[in-house]
Amino acid sequence: VLTLGDISQQLGLSLRGGAAELPISGLATLRGAKPGELSFFSNRHYLKQLGDTRASAVIVAEEFAGEFSGAVLISPTPYLSYAKASSLFDDRPVPVAGIHPTAWVDPTARLADDVKIGPHCAVGPECSLDSGVSLGAGTVLGAGSRIGRGSRLDARVTLCDGVEVGFACHIQSGAVLGSDGFGYAPEESGWVKIHQLGTVKLGDRVHIGANTCIDRGALGDTVIGNGVIIDNLVQIAHNVHIGENTAIAACCAIAGSTTIGSGCTIAGAVGIIGHLQIVDNVHVTAMSLITHSITVPGSYSSGTQMGETHEWRKNAVRFSQLDKIYKRLRELERAERR
Amino acid sequence: VLTLGDISQQLGLSLRGGAAELPISGLATLRGAKPGELSFFSNRHYLKQLGDTRASAVIVAEEFAGEFSGAVLISPTPYLSYAKASSLFDDRPVPVAGIHPTAWVDPTARLADDVKIGPHCAVGPECSLDSGVSLGAGTVLGAGSRIGRGSRLDARVTLCDGVEVGFACHIQSGAVLGSDGFGYAPEESGWVKIHQLGTVKLGDRVHIGANTCIDRGALGDTVIGNGVIIDNLVQIAHNVHIGENTAIAACCAIAGSTTIGSGCTIAGAVGIIGHLQIVDNVHVTAMSLITHSITVPGSYSSGTQMGETHEWRKNAVRFSQLDKIYKRLRELERAERR
Amino acid sequence: VLTLGDISQQLGLSLRGGAAELPISGLATLRGAKPGELSFFSNRHYLKQLGDTRASAVIVAEEFAGEFSGAVLISPTPYLSYAKASSLFDDRPVPVAGIHPTAWVDPTARLADDVKIGPHCAVGPECSLDSGVSLGAGTVLGAGSRIGRGSRLDARVTLCDGVEVGFACHIQSGAVLGSDGFGYAPEESGWVKIHQLGTVKLGDRVHIGANTCIDRGALGDTVIGNGVIIDNLVQIAHNVHIGENTAIAACCAIAGSTTIGSGCTIAGAVGIIGHLQIVDNVHVTAMSLITHSITVPGSYSSGTQMGETHEWRKNAVRFSQLDKIYKRLRELERAERR
Repeated sequence: VLTLGDISQQLGLSLRGGAAELPISGLATLRGAKPGELSFFSNRHYLKQLGDTRASAVIVAEEFAGEFSGAVLISPTPYLSYAKASSLFDDRPVPVAGIHPTAWVDPTARLADDVKIGPHCAVGPECSLDSGVSLGAGTVLGAGSRIGRGSRLDARVTLCDGVEVGFACHIQSGAVLGSDGFGYAPEESGWVKIHQLGTVKLGDRVHIGANTCIDRGALGDTVIGNGVIIDNLVQIAHNVHIGENTAIAACCAIAGSTTIGSGCTIAGAVGIIGHLQIVDNVHVTAMSLITHSITVPGSYSSGTQMGETHEWRKNAVRFSQLDKIYKRLRELERAERR
Repeated sequence: VLTLGDISQQLGLSLRGGAAELPISGLATLRGAKPGELSFFSNRHYLKQLGDTRASAVIVAEEFAGEFSGAVLISPTPYLSYAKASSLFDDRPVPVAGIHPTAWVDPTARLADDVKIGPHCAVGPECSLDSGVSLGAGTVLGAGSRIGRGSRLDARVTLCDGVEVGFACHIQSGAVLGSDGFGYAPEESGWVKIHQLGTVKLGDRVHIGANTCIDRGALGDTVIGNGVIIDNLVQIAHNVHIGENTAIAACCAIAGSTTIGSGCTIAGAVGIIGHLQIVDNVHVTAMSLITHSITVPGSYSSGTQMGETHEWRKNAVRFSQLDKIYKRLRELERAERR
Repeated sequence: VLTLGDISQQLGLSLRGGAAELPISGLATLRGAKPGELSFFSNRHYLKQLGDTRASAVIVAEEFAGEFSGAVLISPTPYLSYAKASSLFDDRPVPVAGIHPTAWVDPTARLADDVKIGPHCAVGPECSLDSGVSLGAGTVLGAGSRIGRGSRLDARVTLCDGVEVGFACHIQSGAVLGSDGFGYAPEESGWVKIHQLGTVKLGDRVHIGANTCIDRGALGDTVIGNGVIIDNLVQIAHNVHIGENTAIAACCAIAGSTTIGSGCTIAGAVGIIGHLQIVDNVHVTAMSLITHSITVPGSYSSGTQMGETHEWRKNAVRFSQLDKIYKRLRELERAERR
């Protein structure tokens, strides 16, 4: 069992108002915490909850430490300290070392001694798995795919042929990396497939959510930079490049050959059309459609505000008349000036 | 072969104008039905089709029974009766009892005698499967996951560690329950992962569509109420709570820590941002973005109406000038009043 | 190694200004090409790149052939010729003939002699696989599913019971065909499932992207025409019909019983509501919502333009007042006329 002293030491935070020997049974929100648990205060919106919490200890900034009567761990960045504390309380089972007897590994694959390969995995020819790599049950690696040190693929992930994954990456269940991009040329009789000759290259410390798809490049590669985090059910099309530490929330769709800078945050269900250039430090609000390149850092949006359907519909009808409405306004202005 | 009398009896509907011995070969729409088939009439928009159908029998409300010349099954709720009838005509193969020889089951898992486990399933340590549970081919259960009586998981489902499923649930192929929520704290050098310490808890009679993702809670759990139905490719983020019998159509994205009441219907491709409270009996129209908590039951929307692109673009340009247009209007009003 | 002469011959294009013996090591964009590589010029926007490219040969239309100093392959349709050339340079490993020892095939399945079945596949009872069919690792075929000559399913695909696939189709990893449609009837106590009695029928030369879902029909089938191409993470609901050679980009959601004509192009993240009729040769721009049937070929859109969030918000607020703004305008017009 962890004590408050252990946590203080491991997070490098000073402890005040409580015994180092106090056992801490878990981590919880201010409102959900029970005695014996540790919580954190990172948003002054919840100041009242800080006073009311039943937690035995709270991670808190110096300036708010007086608002809580129990033990405090003083942190200049309580949310970050909470993130680090969360790893101390993660008791989920870790993958078992070794190759499960039901897995199939091509004899030409090169595996570090300590890889962990789950039930019913299929590791193709010429794959390369570095030290500490783990594959969840049912994961499939195409020929020649390469995975760096300590990267973890959960259950039922697909890496298609030749996909490259850096070190300390995490790819969640159902994700598909290296599927064929959506490239076709029209011919009289229908669509002719453009074979996708590139691959997908993930940097280091990249996180990919469940059922997300990243297509291989048509010519050249699809490239995901170091430290990029991508949520569930995201589509990344062929030849997209994403800069370091950019975050992409669930259900976004990034079309082909678009380049996104580093340090961007793309909220959920955003669409970005193809062949755009987006600079560093751009933020896009939820469900916006980005149709032009962005050259200036900042926040961008599209769409309308929500409303009660009956009211909204009246406004939506007017939207369809907006150009005509504008022209009537202009006419009035001319009349006024006469 | 089912007869009209069988159907009448099993659905508890009175039969009129036809022989109980009449064999019924199948169920069809009014327009698609062939002689020998049963249809239903539930939308007066199709009244003409009721007169014209070649069906041998129709499920119909008393007031419309005279509009069809053949046999009728009288129902106060014909659409509901059709739903119940559909189960009588479902001849798809049912999973075979027993554990397939290619499946892998951890010796510490607790399985009822009559579970059905398909080829290449992987059942982790300490899992618990109640009576009548069936797992389709390639389904993976993480350590400690629990599935209630009679629940059915189709092929290639993933339950991550510790996920709990009630009784009589149905989870379709490719769904992932219990993936890590998208929680990270920013640090100078990039994102620090927040370990997701909660799990996913499904109530009873919950239906989950293909390739849908439900993330585990960060602190506390993600909770899906009894009788909730969720379509394909839906994203449910960490710590979302969904009330009883709420229906969520395909491709919706519900962001973290949002609570949705019971009896809501969320149409397809809707986005709901995080940390909102939505009361019972709220309805959201397709592809709307919900950005604020909803305290009053009713129907809500966002977006614009569709149009021919050339016309739409002219209006969309005016949208981008709308605040300026408004101010010009106000100026004119002032001039008028002078 | 391919020579320029080989390529000229296989694509049926005349070679000018270069030696037929010249070995060609790969295909690249004008800007990315290195000496020894072949490129193509299909968009006059990149005319400067044609002059500057380091490629040893370029596929180009007659009228632009003079703009490049090296070898040219003259094509009336350079983009189409590039598509055809791409197949010559695709050196990804092809599936190995035979049934992998870890696959499970029901003894009642009918397999052509030359099918290729990967590791941990599960082929259900009464399935039928024609000559040249290949299944990637972990693919699951439900009872009675049928796959035509030369069709390729990648890793971890699911065909549910009775799904039919034509010849020369390609289905990518994680796709689910034949999942239950989202059909329920409301009852006092909750939702009653409508059993989905139809199936999914794919024509010939259909391409389906990764993690895409196509639901089986409720009554009658979901039908995808010959030559249709569908990208990743697309939702096709029950009883949708899609006409020949229609293209649907990633993350679209097509609701139930909608019919889409042939030769349509639906851009990414588009929603189309249920029970609509859309004629041939309709084009929909990205992230539009189609709420009405379309009877006239052309291009259709919805939504607003993007903007910097601060400016956009001011306009979005005015959108919510649009009907009132319109009425104030009308009032002014009346005053003006007086």
